[in-house]
Amino acid sequence: MEGKEMKVVIIGGVATGPKAAARLRRLNPRAEITIVEQGKIISYAGCGMPYFVGGDVDSFRSLNTTTAGILRDAAFFRNVKDVKVLDGTLARSIDRKNKIVTAVHGETGESVSLPYDTLVLATGGQPIPLSVEGANLNRVFRLWRPEDAITLRQVAMTEDLKTAVIIGGGLIGLEMAEALTRWGIHVTIVEMMPNILPGLLDAEVAAYLERYLRSEGVDVLTGMRVMSLAGDGGGNVTKVLTQVQDIPSDLVLIATGVRPNTTLARDAGLEIGKTGGIAVNEYLQTSDPEIYAGGDCVENVHLLTGQKVFVPMGSTANKHGRVIANNIMGHRERFKGILGTGVVKVFDCNVGKTGLTEREAREAGLDVVTTLAPAMDSAHYHPNHKPLLLKLIADRNTKKLVGLQAVGLGDAVKRVDVMATALTFEATVDELPALDLGYAPPYSTAVDIAAHAANVLSNKIKGIARASTPGELKAKIDRGDDFIWLDVRTPDEHKKERIEDPRVKLIPLGTLRQRLDELPRDKEIVTFCKFSLRGYEAQTILDGEGYKNVKFMDGGTEAWPYGLVRVGAKNKQD
Amino acid sequence: MEGKEMKVVIIGGVATGPKAAARLRRLNPRAEITIVEQGKIISYAGCGMPYFVGGDVDSFRSLNTTTAGILRDAAFFRNVKDVKVLDGTLARSIDRKNKIVTAVHGETGESVSLPYDTLVLATGGQPIPLSVEGANLNRVFRLWRPEDAITLRQVAMTEDLKTAVIIGGGLIGLEMAEALTRWGIHVTIVEMMPNILPGLLDAEVAAYLERYLRSEGVDVLTGMRVMSLAGDGGGNVTKVLTQVQDIPSDLVLIATGVRPNTTLARDAGLEIGKTGGIAVNEYLQTSDPEIYAGGDCVENVHLLTGQKVFVPMGSTANKHGRVIANNIMGHRERFKGILGTGVVKVFDCNVGKTGLTEREAREAGLDVVTTLAPAMDSAHYHPNHKPLLLKLIADRNTKKLVGLQAVGLGDAVKRVDVMATALTFEATVDELPALDLGYAPPYSTAVDIAAHAANVLSNKIKGIARASTPGELKAKIDRGDDFIWLDVRTPDEHKKERIEDPRVKLIPLGTLRQRLDELPRDKEIVTFCKFSLRGYEAQTILDGEGYKNVKFMDGGTEAWPYGLVRVGAKNKQD
Repeated sequence: MEGKEMKVVIIGGVATGPKAAARLRRLNPRAEITIVEQGKIISYAGCGMPYFVGGDVDSFRSLNTTTAGILRDAAFFRNVKDVKVLDGTLARSIDRKNKIVTAVHGETGESVSLPYDTLVLATGGQPIPLSVEGANLNRVFRLWRPEDAITLRQVAMTEDLKTAVIIGGGLIGLEMAEALTRWGIHVTIVEMMPNILPGLLDAEVAAYLERYLRSEGVDVLTGMRVMSLAGDGGGNVTKVLTQVQDIPSDLVLIATGVRPNTTLARDAGLEIGKTGGIAVNEYLQTSDPEIYAGGDCVENVHLLTGQKVFVPMGSTANKHGRVIANNIMGHRERFKGILGTGVVKVFDCNVGKTGLTEREAREAGLDVVTTLAPAMDSAHYHPNHKPLLLKLIADRNTKKLVGLQAVGLGDAVKRVDVMATALTFEATVDELPALDLGYAPPYSTAVDIAAHAANVLSNKIKGIARASTPGELKAKIDRGDDFIWLDVRTPDEHKKERIEDPRVKLIPLGTLRQRLDELPRDKEIVTFCKFSLRGYEAQTILDGEGYKNVKFMDGGTEAWPYGLVRVGAKNKQD
Repeated sequence: MEGKEMKVVIIGGVATGPKAAARLRRLNPRAEITIVEQGKIISYAGCGMPYFVGGDVDSFRSLNTTTAGILRDAAFFRNVKDVKVLDGTLARSIDRKNKIVTAVHGETGESVSLPYDTLVLATGGQPIPLSVEGANLNRVFRLWRPEDAITLRQVAMTEDLKTAVIIGGGLIGLEMAEALTRWGIHVTIVEMMPNILPGLLDAEVAAYLERYLRSEGVDVLTGMRVMSLAGDGGGNVTKVLTQVQDIPSDLVLIATGVRPNTTLARDAGLEIGKTGGIAVNEYLQTSDPEIYAGGDCVENVHLLTGQKVFVPMGSTANKHGRVIANNIMGHRERFKGILGTGVVKVFDCNVGKTGLTEREAREAGLDVVTTLAPAMDSAHYHPNHKPLLLKLIADRNTKKLVGLQAVGLGDAVKRVDVMATALTFEATVDELPALDLGYAPPYSTAVDIAAHAANVLSNKIKGIARASTPGELKAKIDRGDDFIWLDVRTPDEHKKERIEDPRVKLIPLGTLRQRLDELPRDKEIVTFCKFSLRGYEAQTILDGEGYKNVKFMDGGTEAWPYGLVRVGAKNKQD
């Protein structure tokens, strides 16, 4: 490289590409850095598009400016970063032997040859197509490119739409459900899998979120496959047809996810992984060491399983950009992997996951122990407190934490981030409660809810606490098993919100020790309360009194996904 | 212990004591457990008292009930936990030889002997007295026992008070500043140390908070010692006299902190540590292995320094209670120590610290590297975003993280909790940015602000980034040093908010590469912007152009503690 400047060509100008370019420049004032981007808008916050559609963000330009309000366009990259941007330009092929990228300008058709010393592929993802009849009707959208967002907002704002169907209950589907609802459109989410956010949540946690969405006026249909879309004479979509019902729909958003865009890499003979993403090593080099790749076009290593996974995420894309730049400039840095962390805000509900779900953990062959821990996220006497449902998962053998799911009006993301940090350092269920986390009444309880959940897991592993999950109980009920379903809440709580089942018997916790004569010793007893604290306490009391077959119901009524009878409930979540 | 039930006596019924009792019972259904508590109210949320005084919490009873609304009184402990509570009863002495505690009932004067197999000391802290003239005047309060909170609220609500002085700018002092302000009382905080929250914040971070408090109408006087209190003829306090000024005051709250209450332990010949707290081992046993101690009466090990420290905290007290119970019942568990984490909400500002401050780190002999990172806590285009100032500290030699301070309207506590977790696992500055934290626009930026701060530290350690701290710059200015203070913000930003100094020169970052001829090569240049991102970028541009003496100003104008000229500012924080 002596005597002439290093040439770096970067294909892709949204997240990984611009990040790599900026870092490269700061590390090397002389390198020739060129970004080739197919679109006209570069370095924009794709993750912000639902907020633009919903009206939280006034103009698309906001997604494309710095915090100081400066537009991140080609001129910005030229003047500030000394980086050349070829926008509206499609990279067509890579000549690896001669190290030349050929690109074509979208409007002029002009071809350009870009020699490189190092090439960075940041070609992103592309929408997974929905191959059904009617997918080309008017008012059937994807949220993919900036133009999609701009059109969608325009249509939602100005046209008289009453109903929308969102096909796909993933992150974008949920964010867009809120966005469209804000324009007064009634939204139905249709998800093929048994629950929404199937990559993030196990069924009973998703059920909690589904109840919430319904309380916000969004219909949620799960386990339902879209067969076709039907339109009117004018070519506008009017309904979505599934195997069980037709759903009227003035607008359809297809949010069936993305897959890695690997055309260029594949054509150049680079190795593609089993997940479909470009294969990269820890330094984010492809099978050609002069070609790096990052962002939504590559696969990642899951830190907990060591398996390759495809989890496109804006945060990961930015990390990749920096690591790639460091490696190109000789500051060797490993990108070890991801935890599959994902968070999303839907209306006022906060949702997140890190690590593995129970389903993923079982698929990975772990002997898992889980707990459903609903609670208030901060001191119940402080006005800030809001409900949160946590599901914490650990490996019974190693006692290592495996994953956390969190849903509710409370602060889910803080717990997810703490857990992501703990997972990175392979923390055990005993290490979590010992963490010196910040405590003040507006923020948490003296024993934080995540620490509490870890304590429950620890108790379960030791056999001190024994629980039935909602799913296990449901199976028992469906089988017609005989057991005492012991509600240990107050009569008042029982009146307001109860499980309607003949097995249920009410003995408030405070009177349990005095009323043991009402409980036969030869029957199985499943105790419960609202959050499962008193339920667990009741289990230990009955254990202490010599009862041999007692469990508590994991998650209490708060996490019971199969329906409660509520009388005069003020709780929105029904 | 065979044949007869184990007797556990617990002295102290607020946090550690009840927690230990509840856990003991769950582990052992037969043990005889007795709590001896001096006060009439047990198991209450002491940390919630400022919110009761301020009116956020309606009745004191709320601090003393479970989430389900059940009063945690002696009857509750008897019925639910099968734990005997002797309230209003003062433990007078411990006969270690015969294993008997002698206690006296406060009202009846009746003496009771309590034999124990294991004793738990949870005697808490006690207020550090303020030994000045006038401390016994009317309307001079502490916030210590429930009765104090009840009286304070009554006085604040019903009496016509215009002014209050809070002596001590610690956690309680700040929470109470908000509480009293809510009743329409003008509050002045008088802090003896050079800044408020001296145990939590370095001076320049505290300055940011002090500006905020002033914007909320609270006066803050630091480095000021109270000499005496003066009253009127009726014995009511009327002013607070310091060495420099008299402050009118209809009410005085002494919030000078607590020290461990060790009278009983000391009298029993138990070892007391250098910090003044009861010395305990990792299992929370005192020098008498049959006597455990926890909560505000003991000293802890600081996880980062290995030193003994006295940091009373409700969260730690609860952890202690559980660990003590586990150890008593043979589930051996170590309590390894604390990080000195503390968080507090003051009006809408969130404040927190974990690990060591820069001052503490230097005192511990570390070669520290620090950064001031102000930023928006989430995507700047999303309406949720709020400002936050982070100060991140690492050890230059080991690259290990050492501490974080966070202040602002943004989500400080999440970053504190993530960092507390990272510190526990001895994370380095390179591991923090790699964490797979949750990213969505309402919650964070694609590169989280804490990760960004760690990247800056990493750049500083590598010598890529070079900064002057505000303190260093202030010293240069005071010395009259000649340098170019290069503002690289936009002319608009410069007009609205600027540092008034003849050394300041404005060249917006976008034009810097074109205007190098305006910058002499023989002078020191200190670049700055609002958040220090562009300032750093300018440094790298000038480095690249061969300038030899360039630094950026750490923290930009946002963290500059020495005053800005603001024109038409909408920012509350001035």
